Amino acid sequence: MDVRNIDDLIRFSDEKMQKLPVFESPKYFFDLYCLKPGQDQRIHTHAESDKIYFVVRGRGLFHIAGEEKELGAGETVIARPGQDHGVKNSSAADLVVLVFMIPRP
Amino acid sequence: MDVRNIDDLIRFSDEKMQKLPVFESPKYFFDLYCLKPGQDQRIHTHAESDKIYFVVRGRGLFHIAGEEKELGAGETVIARPGQDHGVKNSSAADLVVLVFMIPRP
Repeated sequence: MDVRNIDDLIRFSDEKMQKLPVFESPKYFFDLYCLKPGQDQRIHTHAESDKIYFVVRGRGLFHIAGEEKELGAGETVIARPGQDHGVKNSSAADLVVLVFMIPRP
Repeated sequence: MDVRNIDDLIRFSDEKMQKLPVFESPKYFFDLYCLKPGQDQRIHTHAESDKIYFVVRGRGLFHIAGEEKELGAGETVIARPGQDHGVKNSSAADLVVLVFMIPRP
């Protein structure tokens, strides 16, 4: 059975946000983002894909289509095709986020 | 910003497992399953879709392609196209699971 324990995948780097694949598919990305305080995924856009963030641990400042909001564990947000989006760990603790992107760009 | 707090979506019924949509799309399902002790999603198969379970809270007995394994919070498992799959709350506590199905059947 193809099981992953998120705790086993979590990995941080002092250099930049870490993006770890959870399950591989040609149809979508299912990744784990690990951000130390101050690290971010720069704001960008996908013309055709939805991106869904789900906060597993910590708090992050999410930017979607020009709006910013701080979200914590158990909160989820979606960027639809064409909406600019990004996330920054603006807290003092580590941030862990599950990320789906459908379809792969 | 299109945000959901999983805690606000959770809903249980004494009659059967509850399936709540988190975000809507024609391309995939992103749902929350809420199972009281003893409740289950019967084993079934999708010919073309991946299904990914992520346990948010509690413990569940997952069946994938003839194998069974109990998984807890922070664990995730995938059923690939054609693999039979289902989940049962065989514990004494409530079970909450995020479920992605790509593409919609």
